[in-house]
Amino acid sequence: MPFHYIQPPVFINRAGSVDRFDRKVSQWIVPWEEGQEVEAGLIGVPLSRSSISPSAASEAPNALRGVWKSFAAYDVDHDVDLTRIRAADFGDIAMHVTDIPRCHQNIEAGVLEMLEASRDFPSFLPVILGGDHSITCPALKGLARFHTGKRIGLIQFDTHFDVRNLEDGGPSNGTPIRGLLESGTLRGEDIFQIGIHSFANALAHKEYAEEQGITYATMRQVRQEGLLSILERFVKILRQQVDGIYITVDIDVLDLACLPGSPGPSPGGMQPWELFDAVHRLGQEDKVLALDLVCLDPFRDRGQLSVKTGAHVILSFLSGYCQRLQQKGP
Amino acid sequence: MPFHYIQPPVFINRAGSVDRFDRKVSQWIVPWEEGQEVEAGLIGVPLSRSSISPSAASEAPNALRGVWKSFAAYDVDHDVDLTRIRAADFGDIAMHVTDIPRCHQNIEAGVLEMLEASRDFPSFLPVILGGDHSITCPALKGLARFHTGKRIGLIQFDTHFDVRNLEDGGPSNGTPIRGLLESGTLRGEDIFQIGIHSFANALAHKEYAEEQGITYATMRQVRQEGLLSILERFVKILRQQVDGIYITVDIDVLDLACLPGSPGPSPGGMQPWELFDAVHRLGQEDKVLALDLVCLDPFRDRGQLSVKTGAHVILSFLSGYCQRLQQKGP
Amino acid sequence: MPFHYIQPPVFINRAGSVDRFDRKVSQWIVPWEEGQEVEAGLIGVPLSRSSISPSAASEAPNALRGVWKSFAAYDVDHDVDLTRIRAADFGDIAMHVTDIPRCHQNIEAGVLEMLEASRDFPSFLPVILGGDHSITCPALKGLARFHTGKRIGLIQFDTHFDVRNLEDGGPSNGTPIRGLLESGTLRGEDIFQIGIHSFANALAHKEYAEEQGITYATMRQVRQEGLLSILERFVKILRQQVDGIYITVDIDVLDLACLPGSPGPSPGGMQPWELFDAVHRLGQEDKVLALDLVCLDPFRDRGQLSVKTGAHVILSFLSGYCQRLQQKGP
Amino acid sequence: MPFHYIQPPVFINRAGSVDRFDRKVSQWIVPWEEGQEVEAGLIGVPLSRSSISPSAASEAPNALRGVWKSFAAYDVDHDVDLTRIRAADFGDIAMHVTDIPRCHQNIEAGVLEMLEASRDFPSFLPVILGGDHSITCPALKGLARFHTGKRIGLIQFDTHFDVRNLEDGGPSNGTPIRGLLESGTLRGEDIFQIGIHSFANALAHKEYAEEQGITYATMRQVRQEGLLSILERFVKILRQQVDGIYITVDIDVLDLACLPGSPGPSPGGMQPWELFDAVHRLGQEDKVLALDLVCLDPFRDRGQLSVKTGAHVILSFLSGYCQRLQQKGP
Amino acid sequence: MPFHYIQPPVFINRAGSVDRFDRKVSQWIVPWEEGQEVEAGLIGVPLSRSSISPSAASEAPNALRGVWKSFAAYDVDHDVDLTRIRAADFGDIAMHVTDIPRCHQNIEAGVLEMLEASRDFPSFLPVILGGDHSITCPALKGLARFHTGKRIGLIQFDTHFDVRNLEDGGPSNGTPIRGLLESGTLRGEDIFQIGIHSFANALAHKEYAEEQGITYATMRQVRQEGLLSILERFVKILRQQVDGIYITVDIDVLDLACLPGSPGPSPGGMQPWELFDAVHRLGQEDKVLALDLVCLDPFRDRGQLSVKTGAHVILSFLSGYCQRLQQKGP
Amino acid sequence: MPFHYIQPPVFINRAGSVDRFDRKVSQWIVPWEEGQEVEAGLIGVPLSRSSISPSAASEAPNALRGVWKSFAAYDVDHDVDLTRIRAADFGDIAMHVTDIPRCHQNIEAGVLEMLEASRDFPSFLPVILGGDHSITCPALKGLARFHTGKRIGLIQFDTHFDVRNLEDGGPSNGTPIRGLLESGTLRGEDIFQIGIHSFANALAHKEYAEEQGITYATMRQVRQEGLLSILERFVKILRQQVDGIYITVDIDVLDLACLPGSPGPSPGGMQPWELFDAVHRLGQEDKVLALDLVCLDPFRDRGQLSVKTGAHVILSFLSGYCQRLQQKGP
Ligand SMILES: [Ca+2]
Ligand SMILES: [Ca+2]
Ligand SMILES: [Ca+2]
Ligand SMILES: [Ca+2]
Ligand SMILES: [Ca+2]
Ligand SMILES: [Ca+2]
Ligand SMILES: [Ca+2]
Ligand SMILES: [Ca+2]
Ligand SMILES: [Ca+2]
Ligand SMILES: [Ca+2]
Ligand SMILES: [Ca+2]
Ligand SMILES: [Ca+2]
Repeated sequence: MPFHYIQPPVFINRAGSVDRFDRKVSQWIVPWEEGQEVEAGLIGVPLSRSSISPSAASEAPNALRGVWKSFAAYDVDHDVDLTRIRAADFGDIAMHVTDIPRCHQNIEAGVLEMLEASRDFPSFLPVILGGDHSITCPALKGLARFHTGKRIGLIQFDTHFDVRNLEDGGPSNGTPIRGLLESGTLRGEDIFQIGIHSFANALAHKEYAEEQGITYATMRQVRQEGLLSILERFVKILRQQVDGIYITVDIDVLDLACLPGSPGPSPGGMQPWELFDAVHRLGQEDKVLALDLVCLDPFRDRGQLSVKTGAHVILSFLSGYCQRLQQKGP
Repeated sequence: MPFHYIQPPVFINRAGSVDRFDRKVSQWIVPWEEGQEVEAGLIGVPLSRSSISPSAASEAPNALRGVWKSFAAYDVDHDVDLTRIRAADFGDIAMHVTDIPRCHQNIEAGVLEMLEASRDFPSFLPVILGGDHSITCPALKGLARFHTGKRIGLIQFDTHFDVRNLEDGGPSNGTPIRGLLESGTLRGEDIFQIGIHSFANALAHKEYAEEQGITYATMRQVRQEGLLSILERFVKILRQQVDGIYITVDIDVLDLACLPGSPGPSPGGMQPWELFDAVHRLGQEDKVLALDLVCLDPFRDRGQLSVKTGAHVILSFLSGYCQRLQQKGP
Repeated sequence: MPFHYIQPPVFINRAGSVDRFDRKVSQWIVPWEEGQEVEAGLIGVPLSRSSISPSAASEAPNALRGVWKSFAAYDVDHDVDLTRIRAADFGDIAMHVTDIPRCHQNIEAGVLEMLEASRDFPSFLPVILGGDHSITCPALKGLARFHTGKRIGLIQFDTHFDVRNLEDGGPSNGTPIRGLLESGTLRGEDIFQIGIHSFANALAHKEYAEEQGITYATMRQVRQEGLLSILERFVKILRQQVDGIYITVDIDVLDLACLPGSPGPSPGGMQPWELFDAVHRLGQEDKVLALDLVCLDPFRDRGQLSVKTGAHVILSFLSGYCQRLQQKGP
Repeated sequence: MPFHYIQPPVFINRAGSVDRFDRKVSQWIVPWEEGQEVEAGLIGVPLSRSSISPSAASEAPNALRGVWKSFAAYDVDHDVDLTRIRAADFGDIAMHVTDIPRCHQNIEAGVLEMLEASRDFPSFLPVILGGDHSITCPALKGLARFHTGKRIGLIQFDTHFDVRNLEDGGPSNGTPIRGLLESGTLRGEDIFQIGIHSFANALAHKEYAEEQGITYATMRQVRQEGLLSILERFVKILRQQVDGIYITVDIDVLDLACLPGSPGPSPGGMQPWELFDAVHRLGQEDKVLALDLVCLDPFRDRGQLSVKTGAHVILSFLSGYCQRLQQKGP
Repeated sequence: MPFHYIQPPVFINRAGSVDRFDRKVSQWIVPWEEGQEVEAGLIGVPLSRSSISPSAASEAPNALRGVWKSFAAYDVDHDVDLTRIRAADFGDIAMHVTDIPRCHQNIEAGVLEMLEASRDFPSFLPVILGGDHSITCPALKGLARFHTGKRIGLIQFDTHFDVRNLEDGGPSNGTPIRGLLESGTLRGEDIFQIGIHSFANALAHKEYAEEQGITYATMRQVRQEGLLSILERFVKILRQQVDGIYITVDIDVLDLACLPGSPGPSPGGMQPWELFDAVHRLGQEDKVLALDLVCLDPFRDRGQLSVKTGAHVILSFLSGYCQRLQQKGP
Repeated sequence: MPFHYIQPPVFINRAGSVDRFDRKVSQWIVPWEEGQEVEAGLIGVPLSRSSISPSAASEAPNALRGVWKSFAAYDVDHDVDLTRIRAADFGDIAMHVTDIPRCHQNIEAGVLEMLEASRDFPSFLPVILGGDHSITCPALKGLARFHTGKRIGLIQFDTHFDVRNLEDGGPSNGTPIRGLLESGTLRGEDIFQIGIHSFANALAHKEYAEEQGITYATMRQVRQEGLLSILERFVKILRQQVDGIYITVDIDVLDLACLPGSPGPSPGGMQPWELFDAVHRLGQEDKVLALDLVCLDPFRDRGQLSVKTGAHVILSFLSGYCQRLQQKGP
């Protein structure tokens, strides 16, 4: 392998269908081979010891690998055949058991390494599978280093502002946005947060977000205006302001009844189909450079409800991305 | 008993209410006695070894029998007193442990036998409790034999097309629609499917469905147009084309968060109340001849969430059927 | 302590946040001290042996105490800082192990005692944490004794009419409304019920409710008209008819998929965010005197889905109440 | 029916085996018909609102009825064919929803009624299915009234002494032994308790038991001496002292890992096979007049672990009883 | 691949340890490559639609593959380094979705095929991962065809005799021993069953077993004499009678509290460590030719209790087998 | 508070019994007040982000605080009234969210601080509630600093050697013994490990343990010789070699069926009652200075099986300690 910070996937489930004509995602997303050109590259970041409350989000990448076999590589809602593009599993970024700062450094280096390896493939788009939300800060830094000189914006689906102060507990799943602001990686006006929830955020954090110029929509606003309408407004602004957009999906934005598998969800959250539609829309958007999915904790899941929902998020995004590439044409 | 293929119910729960004025469904649906005239006849089909993935849907008929005591025989939403009509439990169609083809033959013969036994009772309507979806093919064949010469249409609530090829695995829960088409029991243009879901169906199956002239609505269409609106369109067409309509409800059409008890549901599926409204509407429809409910797996359930939801589907349909009979008058 | 029927809380969880600026509900609702003026007083009623079906709703008060630490004392949706008002936990009303009538007497006496202790504090509002729904009858009687001479109305969120006859089983969770009517505490025309559900209520109970002049909205009506619209209609009528309004929230009004933790929910029930909006609106309403939350059974819960949902109901109501007090000004 | 206090079983599961030669317990224990002579009569006592901590032991009789189909009516360990004797299900003693004293009166009357109905059948032996442990006091009183003038002894399998004072909470599942002593139904020296556990009993209760002359063996003694050895010692004494012996099995005597389905079990409890051997031995014993099984809570069960264990207790006892009758000869 | 009836493993989990010196079983059992010599060959038989009650034992082979990473390849109890021998995963025998007879034919052919492929490797020993117990009949037939002319004996760990008649339901998990007897594959006197349990077997089946000359030990005998002592007696007899011994482990022989993941276990069953010791002993035994493990149903499991227990059975057997080979020397 | 590294308990459950004579552990272990003399001091160490696999053992101290109310403060097996000695809850050692080395420093400092605060009370004995096993290394270092100049020995109940190398992952729950050896805190010959399990430890770790002179007993040896016999041998040696003994209980030494609530247990582990007897014996032992309980993960628990078992371990130890103090007399 050409990588210092990335290890190939140890967990593989290539199971297919009884029906020979039924192509499963497990047969489409295959382990990446050195030099291989793909349009979509998945990479796992198995870190969750940086979570404030106990989390097994480190197990999410393998949990997702385990359910690809349950999904067909075809989106009947938008008539998109995913197998028109090529997708690969790059494996996991290497983590340390007890040195959390080193884990964060590896993430920044690993994301950069993955992007460098695909520098010659103009359509390459990374999909980053957390881990807890602390990974978004170094992952986005790695992406920003690859795109040096470009201004990057962020669309965040989350119950939380994630702007806790860094002094009290260091870089955790409660701080990624603050880390990106304090490090100068992002400007406040380029950050758009959707799904912010009552009784899940402190007044102090709302005040900090407003001081920094962050734009946000609460869940009540989402229900009143509609998620897609809000999203269009945000995308329109971002398209004018920035050179590239990073999408971060904290799965705890979803309703607690639909998403038991996360430390963070609240009752009254977003419905899964709303999120599917939103990320599908963002997959179509030219300036979108990457997506991460975080805080999916398979140990808290019931059945595979949360893991399958997380998988559906990834596939919806990739379906939109297929449409983006098809529009561009060959 | 007058039957060769049907065994009387072995599982009975007649529990009633503390309040003497509160009549429960367990007191309304009673074991059928030979020659008894009823308007609604329930019959179990405890077969799920024909399911592609492991399923205990064979346990659904008794699981439903176990929860009737939790439901009042009154529909306050439509002010319908179910006890105005008579309902009976015919028991279960006899199954074989290891001979799946024989099970399917028994289903066809058993449904026919039940219909023959009620031939003199013009309002008789069967409700068939699966079992996995493979049972719909022989059940509908049995019904078609009873109604020889009549053209039958199908309305199917399902996440899946159910048109897998029959060569690779034989008649399973993935093939009932294909089996009905290939056997000439139904014409493609008489089949209407609602709830077809992304990443749950192969491109090849969508192409087959379109070639056969099947009409379908995806879950995204359901959310955009509204289920009842779509249903009215479909019913209107069917009413003109066919002599009788069979309703098949694959419970996996419901959202995975609301329906853990099935091998098949996806996140982003139909909401239970949408399905209740739809089957209530279909109960009112003159040409509707029968309904089956399949792929309800009590072993995967949590609490009794799925079983109670399945029971609510049956009762909603019967409430609509009460209204149909009341309109006709005595 | 100054009380004969109330015991101070034995269960306390004062856990706070990692971030010093993040104030949790656990740090806001503190054990009440004698003579202390507060705007909101919580009190537990750990009784559920009066429930028809087995219930551990007696454990709900402590379960709620255990999750306050998971909620921030800030409502970003309405920009309300809960800590602007003072809140205290008065503890639990004393219960007897086997003498259910005495439990009900204690509830009436305990609620009165709590109100007397705060007689000098004009903004004092009690929040009563059940317990099963049988507690609403004596709790409202206690409130009515405190407000002697005033006409009290009731808004009830519930799947059920709760008007079973008192002869067959005595005062249980199926009878509180009948008990309030038969005792003359309430008039039928002052009772408004929202969320009444099909197959969950007997025809006889619907007829009794109508005879008594009770106004009700079924779940189907809620979905068709919208909960807030119905609520405004009901509030408008009540405001003219009565001097004070008591709110009772039977948590089983919520959809079974969202609320496993209760003996009563049905599929197709109310969505949590609808209920949050409704109680927030009622918190704002001047004539509202008290709220209780009943039939939350932590033993049937999954994860903390139901308990967190119940906590969100309380906090939403208190957020509306904060706005009411702020409007009045200092 | 000839009964005032007993209702026939509403829950019946007659399911049999695939193999026609395999006779299930569900086919052996059938609903009792008036005047029918049987050797063993089962009766349910669905009361657990008298339990100190929340309990659904009221659901145990029907839960046991639901699993008889999973057991063969043959004991290969002792080569006993249960079908050699006749067994019937008498149904349930009638309970009141909110009047606990009346429930206890009904139990005493119902047990007496059942015994009177079988007075002419000398081999008749009742098996009483609780309910919580409060039922043992009235049940044994009913038995004592039938056997007026006879001295009755008690063997109790339990983690607890069950001698809490009756003043603080009335007759609950913590008080049956105290109730039997204070009412003069039993003498202390005729009571033998097995399985008393550390950190599950107060010093005051141990002192009371000793004052009353109760003999007990702790779980540590059971492990050191062996359960059967202790039992033989106790039986030997009892046989000389009393005219008849009542067996009460509080299922919480079993190890918590083996018996999740009860409010009371502790880690380090009795192993199921020890209890099976013990009740089998007691079934053989001539002076044994009845057995009850209490505090089995199906709502706390996992899978059917506890319910199946409880069923195995009943069957082991009946197997011993078969041997007793066979020894006597025809 | 050289196989017609065997498919290579689609599920691979090569995860290792944080500590480079800690070798996991996942790193020792690797996918077999054509022509590769190994001492132990694992093969999955994902069939359980032939089970009488619903079973997902078809998922056991992949469930076991998923937990190898949790086990070190070292047995500290016997100081055996498993990596001294070579082990490979041959994949799964191909199954049909609805044709159960064909599945059984494939098993016989697949086992034979695997043995033929290793004919030149004298130490080769197959470990067969079921599937339900119906697979033992064809698997042993395949082995017997490979060892034509040799007399094969059987040691079976099971709660059940598994001698149901073949007429009523065909070859299911209740019939393997009958199938082996009726087909002449085994003689009754060469069959030794351990763990037969009360109330789990019909009198008719015990009589059949005795008529056929089968030797069995009930669980009570196991507890009285000790499992290893019984086993030595049985092995001593078998060693003299037969040329080779097949071991079948129906995991339902274990106590229900220790083994939730199977349709069959009873309370009062064998303890896991007893079974570990027994199969370790059998691994050492020269005449032992193969072992299968059946009726492990991951869908009924709790946590990974049953799957890990099944894995421990396999590893204990292989540890004994290592000692056998080491004693023989190079 | 006088402490820098210890925070008072935020979680308190003082619930008592219905019976006024029944004293619960929740009423005996009360929050410590500055300067208060107690014989037993409990302290929580809520750290588990240092665990190799995801763990919520950080939640164990509060989980134990939550169940004290379920235990009586009396040991009937040894007739020990725990309330004869005084016990207090010192609260939790302060942890950092992302700086694991600082957490370990705080543990060392916090244990020292607690011991210093009780320096004048000669009978003071700390009970340390983990957290994962990484806490034992700093906790024992803190104790050793307090007892400078004294030679400390260790008795460890564990499935694992816990001697992984410190280079590959730093000080985690897999390394505490190695950390204590490499830091010179303990000598190998003063370490005694009980319960070491097959397929749970690498050959390399067994070799390291032997090189260092560690004495260990595998689970098989425990079953063959008996735990108490082995323990006496070990205590006898230690008593001669060292000045003080530290006990560490990794709860994963227990059988997986009895202890779901830990990342580490194996099938075939120690039975709870064996461990209770062992720690009771060690409580009596004069040289025993402290005990810790680690790797109890309430998130993986079922019911409260594991938490209650952990509580029973603590209480059994304290019961033995009571006997030690009573023997010394006043
Ligand atoms: Ca979040
Ligand atoms: Ca976040
Ligand atoms: Ca489907
Ligand atoms: Ca289907
Ligand atoms: Ca209700
Ligand atoms: Ca109610
Ligand atoms: Ca007890
Ligand atoms: Ca008891
Ligand atoms: Ca078996
Ligand atoms: Ca078997
Ligand atoms: Ca360990
Ligand atoms: Ca350890």
